[in-house]
Amino acid sequence: MLSDEQQRLCDENETDYSDLKALYLNCTLKPSPKQSHTRGLIDVSAAIMRENDVDVEILRPADYDIPQGVYPDMTEHGFETDDWPEIQQKVMDADILVLGSPIWLGERSSTCSKVIERLYASSGDLNDDGQYAYYDRVGGCIVTGNEDGVKQVSTSVLYALQHIGYLIPPQADAGWIGEAGPGPSYLDEGSGGPENDFTQRNTTFLTWNLMHMGRMLKDQGGIPAYGNQRSEWEAGCRFDHPNPEHR
Amino acid sequence: MLSDEQQRLCDENETDYSDLKALYLNCTLKPSPKQSHTRGLIDVSAAIMRENDVDVEILRPADYDIPQGVYPDMTEHGFETDDWPEIQQKVMDADILVLGSPIWLGERSSTCSKVIERLYASSGDLNDDGQYAYYDRVGGCIVTGNEDGVKQVSTSVLYALQHIGYLIPPQADAGWIGEAGPGPSYLDEGSGGPENDFTQRNTTFLTWNLMHMGRMLKDQGGIPAYGNQRSEWEAGCRFDHPNPEHR
Amino acid sequence: MLSDEQQRLCDENETDYSDLKALYLNCTLKPSPKQSHTRGLIDVSAAIMRENDVDVEILRPADYDIPQGVYPDMTEHGFETDDWPEIQQKVMDADILVLGSPIWLGERSSTCSKVIERLYASSGDLNDDGQYAYYDRVGGCIVTGNEDGVKQVSTSVLYALQHIGYLIPPQADAGWIGEAGPGPSYLDEGSGGPENDFTQRNTTFLTWNLMHMGRMLKDQGGIPAYGNQRSEWEAGCRFDHPNPEHR
Amino acid sequence: MLSDEQQRLCDENETDYSDLKALYLNCTLKPSPKQSHTRGLIDVSAAIMRENDVDVEILRPADYDIPQGVYPDMTEHGFETDDWPEIQQKVMDADILVLGSPIWLGERSSTCSKVIERLYASSGDLNDDGQYAYYDRVGGCIVTGNEDGVKQVSTSVLYALQHIGYLIPPQADAGWIGEAGPGPSYLDEGSGGPENDFTQRNTTFLTWNLMHMGRMLKDQGGIPAYGNQRSEWEAGCRFDHPNPEHR
Repeated sequence: MLSDEQQRLCDENETDYSDLKALYLNCTLKPSPKQSHTRGLIDVSAAIMRENDVDVEILRPADYDIPQGVYPDMTEHGFETDDWPEIQQKVMDADILVLGSPIWLGERSSTCSKVIERLYASSGDLNDDGQYAYYDRVGGCIVTGNEDGVKQVSTSVLYALQHIGYLIPPQADAGWIGEAGPGPSYLDEGSGGPENDFTQRNTTFLTWNLMHMGRMLKDQGGIPAYGNQRSEWEAGCRFDHPNPEHR
Repeated sequence: MLSDEQQRLCDENETDYSDLKALYLNCTLKPSPKQSHTRGLIDVSAAIMRENDVDVEILRPADYDIPQGVYPDMTEHGFETDDWPEIQQKVMDADILVLGSPIWLGERSSTCSKVIERLYASSGDLNDDGQYAYYDRVGGCIVTGNEDGVKQVSTSVLYALQHIGYLIPPQADAGWIGEAGPGPSYLDEGSGGPENDFTQRNTTFLTWNLMHMGRMLKDQGGIPAYGNQRSEWEAGCRFDHPNPEHR
Repeated sequence: MLSDEQQRLCDENETDYSDLKALYLNCTLKPSPKQSHTRGLIDVSAAIMRENDVDVEILRPADYDIPQGVYPDMTEHGFETDDWPEIQQKVMDADILVLGSPIWLGERSSTCSKVIERLYASSGDLNDDGQYAYYDRVGGCIVTGNEDGVKQVSTSVLYALQHIGYLIPPQADAGWIGEAGPGPSYLDEGSGGPENDFTQRNTTFLTWNLMHMGRMLKDQGGIPAYGNQRSEWEAGCRFDHPNPEHR
Repeated sequence: MLSDEQQRLCDENETDYSDLKALYLNCTLKPSPKQSHTRGLIDVSAAIMRENDVDVEILRPADYDIPQGVYPDMTEHGFETDDWPEIQQKVMDADILVLGSPIWLGERSSTCSKVIERLYASSGDLNDDGQYAYYDRVGGCIVTGNEDGVKQVSTSVLYALQHIGYLIPPQADAGWIGEAGPGPSYLDEGSGGPENDFTQRNTTFLTWNLMHMGRMLKDQGGIPAYGNQRSEWEAGCRFDHPNPEHR
C-alpha cells in the first residue's frame, strides 16, 4: 500500500499521534461490497495515519440509511429511520474528518452533498466556549475520477468544511484522474493511479498536514475562544430557522 | 400568481404551444406535503406555460424512492426498488425540462445532484439519428434560497443539462434570494420574493425562452443530425464503462 | 489538422453556412507570438468552420490593450486607452462566439474573466426588438490544461454566455487535459491531445452544433421577441448602475 | 467603523499580536481614488487588526502595473514593466493574507484571478525546511456584491490559498450582498450592509480567527516540516514547467 518513501516517513516519525482520532467518510455512490476507487486512495492516507497510531475509522455513508435533510435527526421530521445521528457522533468524536468523493459530471457525488447537508444541520451547535461545535477539528478531502474535476470537487468540499468550523491545513486535497476521455479508474489494472507520484505526494502531504494540525490544536487547547463566540452574537439566530447556522 | 404583465403576455400570445410538454423536477429536500419555497417560484413559470396550453407536470423527486447511482435502473445493481425509470420516461416524453433547486451551503441540493446523476445514467443512449438521446430538448433551472447562491447553483445545473444534450436558451436561470444573513424564504410572509420585479422578470424571460426554443426545435425537426452523431464515433465507448457517456 | 472523419464531414456537407461569422477569443495569458496550447485546439474547430465557408476570426485578447472594468469604453472611466470597443464590434458582428481558455489552478484565466467582464459591460444593451443585444447569437467554449479543470472552466464560461443572452447548443464545451500531475500540454510532443479521440469528437460536435444553431437562428429570424423584451420591464434598471444588466 | 461589540473585544483583548503582519489585497476593478465597496468591508477587518497592534497594509492591485502571467517577474517574459515583485515581497513578509474581491457575474474579479495567478507563480518556491514557501501563513477572504455570489467567490479564493500553502482558519470568509436584483452596494446610503449583524459577525470571526492562527503558527514555529517537504519528492518537477507548482 505505502511506497518506500511513505513507509520511511512513518518509520522515522518521532511525534506521538496516538491520542488523535480520524474519520474518513467515503462518499462513493456504491454500497459495500462494491469496489470503490476512491476507497483505494483513502486507504493510502488511512494507512499512513494507522502507522502513526492514529485511531482511524472509514465509513461508507451509502451503506447506511440516511435521509436527505438539514436537521440532526430526520425521524423528527417525518422519516421513519435515520442512521445519521450515530455517524454524527463519530464525527464529533474525531479530531480529523476527511471526506472522500468520486466525481460525477465534474461534481462531488450526491452522497457527498447529502453528507455535507447533514453535517450542516448541526452547524449551529456550540461548544462549551460558545464557539461553533466543529471548531478545533481539522478537515480535508480525497477525490478520484476518470478524467476531470479533482479541483472542482475539492473546492466545494473544503469550502463547506471551513464554513461550518473546520480548520483546513495547507494542501488539504489530494486526488487522481486520468487523461481526458474514457479510461480506467484508480484501482483498475493499468490506471497508473497507484504509481502516480504526484497523487501519492499530495496524499502524503495532506495526511501529515492533517496530523500536524490535529496535534497542534490538541496541544494548544484548540482555537482560542475570543472574538469568535457565537454565543455573544445573535445575528438573527432563531431556533427554527431553515438555515442551520442561523438557528 | 401571475402579475398583470405576466398575464397580459399570456392573454395576447398568438403562438400555439399546445403540442409541447414541460416537466419541472422540484429538487427540494422536503417530501410533500411540506412547503417548498422553490415550488413557489416554479409555480409562476408553470402558470405561464399552462396559460399557453403547454402540457405541464411538476414532480418532487423527494416523494419517490430513488436510489443514488449512475445506471438507468438501480434494481439491476443491487437496490430492491427504484422509481426513477418512470420519471426518466417522463423526462424523455417532455420537450422542456426545468430543474428546481433550493440552495444549501451555497450549492444545489443533494436531491438535485442525485437527479442529475440519474439523468446522466442515460446520457449514452442515442436517438434514431445516432445523436445523444437528450438532443432536441430544452433545459432551464429555477433556484431559491435565503441569502446566496442562485448563480452558483444555476451554473452547475445548466452545465449538466447542456453536457448531456439539452439546448440552453438565453437567460435560462431564474431565482430569488434575500440579503446576506438569516431571513425569510421565498413564500414566507414579507420575504419580498413574489413582489421582486427582477426575479419575476427573469422567471418570465426563462419561461418564454424555453417555449420559444421548444417551438423552434419542434418546427425545425430538431437539431440537424450531422457532425454530431455519436453513432459515427467510438471515442473509447464501452458498454460497461463507469461513465455513462462513455458507454 | 483535421482527421479523416472530420474532413469527410466537411467534404460531404450540403448545408450552406457561408453567411455565418464566427469569432474565437483565445484567452491565453500569453501574447503572440508565444505558443498557445489552447490555440492548438481552437484551430481544429476553426478549420471545420472554414471548410464550411463560415467567416472565421481568431483573436488573442492578450495582444490588445484591454483595461479591466465593467463599462463599454474604459477611456470614459479614467483609462487612457482601450482596445476593447473594436473587439466588442467584432463580437456583435459575429453569429457565433467561442471563448477559449487555459486552466490555471483549476479556473479560467484572468484574461478570460476580464473578457467576460467587458462582454458583461454591454449586457444591458438592447436590440431593435427590445431584447438583450446578445440574443440571436450562439456561444461555446474550448479549454485546455495540463491536468484538471475542463468542466469547471466550461461551467463558468457557458453560464456567463447564456446569462448575457447567448444560446448554448448541446455539448457546447470541448477540451483536453492530461492525467493528474505534471505533464505535457496539448501541443507538446507526445501529449496525446491531438490524437485523443474523445477530445476530437467533442470538438467536432461542439463545432457542428454551433453551426447548426447559428443556421437555425438566422433562418428563423432569431428568438421570437415576445415575453423576453427588457424594454417592457423596468426591474429597477438605472442607467448608472454598477451592474451592467441593471442599467 | 467598529460596533460596540467589535470595539469591546479589541479593548478587552489581552493577547499580544504586535509581531504579526497582515496584508489585504483589495481586488476591486477600480483604481484609486474611486470608491471600492469591498474596501468598505475590508476596513472593518483591518480596524480590528490595527486595534490589536497587528501591522496592517491594504493595497489595490488595480493601482499597480501588473501583467497577467504565471512567472514571478514578467519582465523576464516579454513585458516591459512589472510591479508584482514588490507586492510579492509584501506577501512573503506578511503572516496573514486576505484577498478582497467584488463579484461580477457571480465570480471573483479578473483582478483577483490575476493576483491568484501571480501568487501561484511562486508556489513552487520552498522555504528553508523544504516546504512550500507559503507554509506558515494564514489566509482568508472578504467579498461584496449587489446580489449574489459571496460563497462562490470565497470558495474559489480559499481553495487557491490552501492549495499554494496557506492555512485556512474556520469561517475564513465574510461578505455582504443585497437581495436578488439591482440595489445599493455596501457603502451606498441605505444599503444595510454596515448594519448587517450577520456580515459584521462573520467579519469579526474571520478577523479573530486569522489572528489566532497567525499567533499559534508563530508561537509553535510553523507547521512541522515532516512528511510535507517538497524537497524530498520530485513528482515530475521540472524547472521550466508551465505549472508553477511542478517547477
